[in-house]
Amino acid sequence: MAVASVRVDAVFRALADPTRRQVVARLTHGDASVSELAAPFDMALPSFVQHLRVLEESGVVRSTKTGRVRTFKLVPKRLEVVQDWLAAQRHIWEQRADRFERYVNEMERDAR
Amino acid sequence: MAVASVRVDAVFRALADPTRRQVVARLTHGDASVSELAAPFDMALPSFVQHLRVLEESGVVRSTKTGRVRTFKLVPKRLEVVQDWLAAQRHIWEQRADRFERYVNEMERDAR
Repeated sequence: MAVASVRVDAVFRALADPTRRQVVARLTHGDASVSELAAPFDMALPSFVQHLRVLEESGVVRSTKTGRVRTFKLVPKRLEVVQDWLAAQRHIWEQRADRFERYVNEMERDAR
Repeated sequence: MAVASVRVDAVFRALADPTRRQVVARLTHGDASVSELAAPFDMALPSFVQHLRVLEESGVVRSTKTGRVRTFKLVPKRLEVVQDWLAAQRHIWEQRADRFERYVNEMERDAR
């Protein structure tokens, strides 16, 4: 539970930056090298690599090196964990909203 | 776009902490006062109030004060923004996975 919670923290934190979200969005379309990922950004390479490091430490992406080229790929399972957490919250508040609506409808019917 | 991105950052950052996520989970069940929210946590009140501040600044919760009691409520719309972003990413990678599966199936069929 504690370990899972630390992981969820790291995924949310990794996504709390527009550069890192753009990298994730790029990787949904397919694997990419560091230079391919960095191309759209007007940013010094060491800063960009630091973003990749945060993403990789969170487990949202994984990289492998072949020769001199490091290639990144998305780990969808990690994003699913936070998506599932959000979906669970939404399910509860929507059930509550439904109950409230039924209650209001019953009140209106009784008032007629 | 820049403003929207800052808001998305703030929501992801607000959720990158187990205490704040537990507060969000509690508020899905209904509005609550500071003392009701703080009750399950073995934490000094000022630290806990700081968590509530981060949540409120992100827009994920909103509070109103009546007399001496401050009551918090969830703002589901804010959570939906990050959930929608995640769902959009998932949609893309699942389409890609489907295409890949079709491709493999076709390769296998052609190999027969």
